Amino acid sequence: MKDIGFLAAILTTFSFLPQALLTLRTRKTDEISLAMYLMLNLGIICWLVYGLVLDELAIILANSVTLLFSLPILLVKSSNKLAGRE
Amino acid sequence: MKDIGFLAAILTTFSFLPQALLTLRTRKTDEISLAMYLMLNLGIICWLVYGLVLDELAIILANSVTLLFSLPILLVKSSNKLAGRE
Repeated sequence: MKDIGFLAAILTTFSFLPQALLTLRTRKTDEISLAMYLMLNLGIICWLVYGLVLDELAIILANSVTLLFSLPILLVKSSNKLAGRE
Repeated sequence: MKDIGFLAAILTTFSFLPQALLTLRTRKTDEISLAMYLMLNLGIICWLVYGLVLDELAIILANSVTLLFSLPILLVKSSNKLAGRE
């Protein structure tokens, strides 16, 4: 049963990698929700704080990796919005 | 400390709601990664199975809600791809 939990964690964590690569390559974000990536990145930072306080390495690792992929998407989206490109 | 974990769970779970609403409204998904939503939905289903087998209500609930938001995004993206609209 540990295996399916591990597979679940790998899939959900690394799912943001292809979106990050696509967004960094095309820089197009019209159809990407700013609210989603604001909430997601804030939520991941909360998970990180939670993991750090509880000293839970699995939570810290999974959320560090997810933040690495989700933060660039938020930054490209925000910069497009702020620059009036969408 | 439970509070920040709860806030983290609420934020990351509901972050997919604004994207689902945007995608269902516009039906435009060119900039949305198919690989992301395939991996994400498969990962969430693995989390659900994991939660059901362990009988962990928090895992079952959080992932049911996330699937409710992330599955429509995958369905719109897949149908656009299959219909040759992108």
